[in-house]
Amino acid sequence: MADNGSFQEFLATAVDAATKAGEIIREGFYQTKHVEHKGQVDLVTETDKACEDLVFNHLKQHYPSHKFIGEETTAACGTSELTDEPTWIVDPLDGTTNFVHGFPFVCVSIGLTIGKVPTVGVVYNPIMNELFTGVLGKGAFLNGTPIRVSSQTELVKSLLATEAGTKRDKLTVDTSTNRINSLLFKVRSLRMSGSCALNLCGIACGRLDLFYELGYGGPWDVAAGVLIVKEAGGLVYDPFGKEFNITAPQVAASNPSLKDAFVKALQQSE
Amino acid sequence: MADNGSFQEFLATAVDAATKAGEIIREGFYQTKHVEHKGQVDLVTETDKACEDLVFNHLKQHYPSHKFIGEETTAACGTSELTDEPTWIVDPLDGTTNFVHGFPFVCVSIGLTIGKVPTVGVVYNPIMNELFTGVLGKGAFLNGTPIRVSSQTELVKSLLATEAGTKRDKLTVDTSTNRINSLLFKVRSLRMSGSCALNLCGIACGRLDLFYELGYGGPWDVAAGVLIVKEAGGLVYDPFGKEFNITAPQVAASNPSLKDAFVKALQQSE
Repeated sequence: MADNGSFQEFLATAVDAATKAGEIIREGFYQTKHVEHKGQVDLVTETDKACEDLVFNHLKQHYPSHKFIGEETTAACGTSELTDEPTWIVDPLDGTTNFVHGFPFVCVSIGLTIGKVPTVGVVYNPIMNELFTGVLGKGAFLNGTPIRVSSQTELVKSLLATEAGTKRDKLTVDTSTNRINSLLFKVRSLRMSGSCALNLCGIACGRLDLFYELGYGGPWDVAAGVLIVKEAGGLVYDPFGKEFNITAPQVAASNPSLKDAFVKALQQSE
Repeated sequence: MADNGSFQEFLATAVDAATKAGEIIREGFYQTKHVEHKGQVDLVTETDKACEDLVFNHLKQHYPSHKFIGEETTAACGTSELTDEPTWIVDPLDGTTNFVHGFPFVCVSIGLTIGKVPTVGVVYNPIMNELFTGVLGKGAFLNGTPIRVSSQTELVKSLLATEAGTKRDKLTVDTSTNRINSLLFKVRSLRMSGSCALNLCGIACGRLDLFYELGYGGPWDVAAGVLIVKEAGGLVYDPFGKEFNITAPQVAASNPSLKDAFVKALQQSE
């Protein structure tokens, strides 16, 4: 198998893996309602693990010399160091709370970095049957149709997405609701859908104008999405104006016109 | 035509109207990205008006003696008095901000009250192709399959939905974010999808455990949803424990097990 395959070959392999993982997610999604709470927790764990195994095995079979970073593996092995090697960064099930509750924003996210640069991205929501893809320099697509970020230029007419996160200590919750309070005076409205990867794809296809999240799980939440946003003409950046770092758990995204005003609004919300 | 038709007949007529209105919504939904801002505003207004005309004409043709309350008509005529007469309460396009931005939570909502009691409810999301229906005493359905509220009994494991609303005065925004802050310490997570009618349907099918909204547009946002929730085994109530009034713009909904704890949490968030 060609470890040095073309980007389009990498994409096709990743889409194959995502489609197969999507079948597992879809099956579990419609089962969660029929099992007790303990069973739901097991179902999430099992689905997460089964999807990661499937995706990693599929990719390793094609590209045995590549590196792999995954949410499950990292939790187990405690390592997620990103090197210059071709590295597949995988979130087998983004939106686990949605998965348990049957809220339709769930996905598998598969990103490939080469020289630490996001090069291929696949995000697949098997419930809404939406496949977002991107390849460095080749554009971004939703179910095969090219997508673009929104053309919005005014913060006050922008739709903002963020998440409540999972931390519930007083400092985190207070900071996060104060930030939302500050931003609500400046944007049109707010959405929270429960999936970081799908929020990035929402920016990419122009459903959302602004997105930021602080304190998400790891690079697997954003590795595919950042490429898809960029290939759709958008920007991915640090919420407070520093350089974006894929291994730091804070991200913001928008079209280029909104970036400066958004960063300013985020800085003022501190 | 039978003005005194059976509830099931009323339902079939409402589903017909919703399906036809859904086609207009779907068409507009995929156009908004391709028109300038001024054109987007016009497209919302036109879609709203075209859907309401279609739904009202369809229902009036079948039930000429019935009364009608709609968002557009009420805005124009300034009256929305609910009497004991059979009254169709219609939101031709719920989720207008989503419609403009292409965020897939949009719907048409058609409710019938008889003696002020919600009797038939239809909520149709033509983008996700989800048709929620309910008839008094006959259960609630999603695309023809029976639905039930969640079986969750603990607030801390519950998924909460609410909305940021449209008012941006300091008192409203501060009160609303303080309430969210207080609730975030007590629930699992928060979703904001931008459609009151679809939030109620989310409660009905168990995707969401808790929902409240204050300050929405009018009875057309809830008339269909409250029946669908009740027929799915849920409760609809005033967020602060008073009796629910379909003409007052505040609503809460959940399964019966969560009601007391939710009302207490909402009262404590004041």
